[in-house]
Amino acid sequence: MELTAQVLRDLPRQAHPDLIVGAEHFEDAGVYRVSPEVAIVQTVDFFPPLVDDAHTFGQIAAANALSDVYAMGARPLTALNIVGFPDKDLPHELLHAILRGGAERVAAAGAVIVGGHSVRDAEVKYGLAVTGVVHPDRVVSNAAARVGDALVLTKPLGSGTLTSARKKDLIDDSGLAECIAVMTALNRAACEAMVAVGVHACTDVTGFGLLGHAFEMAEAAGVSFELDAAAVPLMNEAYGLAQQGVLTRAHAATLAHLGGQLDAAGVDEALLKLMADAQTSGGLLISVAADRCDVLLDRITQADVAGVRIGAVRARGAHAVRVR
Amino acid sequence: MELTAQVLRDLPRQAHPDLIVGAEHFEDAGVYRVSPEVAIVQTVDFFPPLVDDAHTFGQIAAANALSDVYAMGARPLTALNIVGFPDKDLPHELLHAILRGGAERVAAAGAVIVGGHSVRDAEVKYGLAVTGVVHPDRVVSNAAARVGDALVLTKPLGSGTLTSARKKDLIDDSGLAECIAVMTALNRAACEAMVAVGVHACTDVTGFGLLGHAFEMAEAAGVSFELDAAAVPLMNEAYGLAQQGVLTRAHAATLAHLGGQLDAAGVDEALLKLMADAQTSGGLLISVAADRCDVLLDRITQADVAGVRIGAVRARGAHAVRVR
Repeated sequence: MELTAQVLRDLPRQAHPDLIVGAEHFEDAGVYRVSPEVAIVQTVDFFPPLVDDAHTFGQIAAANALSDVYAMGARPLTALNIVGFPDKDLPHELLHAILRGGAERVAAAGAVIVGGHSVRDAEVKYGLAVTGVVHPDRVVSNAAARVGDALVLTKPLGSGTLTSARKKDLIDDSGLAECIAVMTALNRAACEAMVAVGVHACTDVTGFGLLGHAFEMAEAAGVSFELDAAAVPLMNEAYGLAQQGVLTRAHAATLAHLGGQLDAAGVDEALLKLMADAQTSGGLLISVAADRCDVLLDRITQADVAGVRIGAVRARGAHAVRVR
Repeated sequence: MELTAQVLRDLPRQAHPDLIVGAEHFEDAGVYRVSPEVAIVQTVDFFPPLVDDAHTFGQIAAANALSDVYAMGARPLTALNIVGFPDKDLPHELLHAILRGGAERVAAAGAVIVGGHSVRDAEVKYGLAVTGVVHPDRVVSNAAARVGDALVLTKPLGSGTLTSARKKDLIDDSGLAECIAVMTALNRAACEAMVAVGVHACTDVTGFGLLGHAFEMAEAAGVSFELDAAAVPLMNEAYGLAQQGVLTRAHAATLAHLGGQLDAAGVDEALLKLMADAQTSGGLLISVAADRCDVLLDRITQADVAGVRIGAVRARGAHAVRVR
């Protein structure tokens, strides 16, 4: 649950000449210029466990927090642990495993944990505040998609569905293995490919689902996103579970939020819901010049990440997002 | 409650050539070099409300989080909001007031809020992850006090005692006014004076109390801290309340932690407990060359902050901390 957006809307805006991207832009992270050559990119995310294994949860939380920095085309440098823990009810070994999982992913990102804070809490919560760096002129915004661009997604959808199914015992640990591999994977290689090739816009797919984040990007750029539902990569068991109605509540909220701005006539209902459902530590949704798309996909594939072309950017039509 | 320190002890250390101060040093904040001229100083702190008024709580939480950056001699640049909120039980106006209070203090520090994250929670929690900058060669450590230094404290003690007393209705809002003024005050002016004058070491006085933080500084430098109990500044009602036994539990933990490393023979018991009790958003404890102390105190006083000389650094004796 994310309360901040609605509340922030009413807060006085803080302007500053070095603030390149502030809290009010609904970008993936804030960006602040510390010198003519260096901007810091900052984000924070934390949440309760969505898998049973503590070490895996730590890895997912860290990969997820790091992802916002990657979505801006930046390189993570440092992270601060944020911990809520019921230390009277649970053994400290659990917290230790969570922190080790987080530290492992932070190290895999080439970053270091420089501190943290923990409070006694009724339930476990873990996440990180992450700081990255980028040249101030090379920030990858979520708002600069251009008509004619190709749209690329770098991870399959399904983490909301599969973690829900595991909680309901509809699948076992082996059924969740692909999902865990996806959620713990860093968007590092996809980001580095994107920065090397040069792209127009990017965001990472998380709580609002593919459709919600596509909508945000389309609105911000005053364009329409056209998505090819058949091309969207899915985790193996995701579609079958979605057909059974196993989804997070977020899919309905996202579809309601898009309302008349979504044209999905004739699209399979379960697939559409899956495209609207919340993802944790999802892939990058990248808007790249069509003639650079193959170069980007090649480069991503070399890095063992599954980049897939899922659509195109069109001049603004009657709908912000069209699925066919 | 701070769980991290004990758990972090067992975690694998992350080394990095640009990590100047890492999580394992028990400094006030982590320090990471981003260029030869610029290091970022990072810290995170959040906690449940310790006063009734939401706006005031936001101010205190922000002043407290910013303080760790000031204690390193750095200048705050950015902050991320960290929020836990029971949005089904409490009106959003309360959260709004907390965030406004935080933003007000962040603005007073010359910094900007660049983002944040909120989760639904059983109780209110608020704080910030703060990033500041400092020249890598000008980081003020907590570990470099020198024999012969004078010790300066920049805020009176008593916030633990007074907020406890208010919760027990032993004092009313007017009785808490001085305490709130102290807790919401930034350590900015004290930090700027310290940086301008040049000092050897500094920390900010928080959960471990004056004695606990003095002990850490003395241990880290291999020296003894000698404190003059009569010189320690106190909030007006603090001593009377401490005599009645109104203190946070932290005073006992700190006194137990110091154990035989503390010599306080003949010191008034209530005063000693007050010196050990937890502070929120406390002052800077500065170790400065004795012949620079008057210059420092003059400069602090010009800035309307109450800097007081409370002791001296001695060669390591039988006790790490001696109170007379």
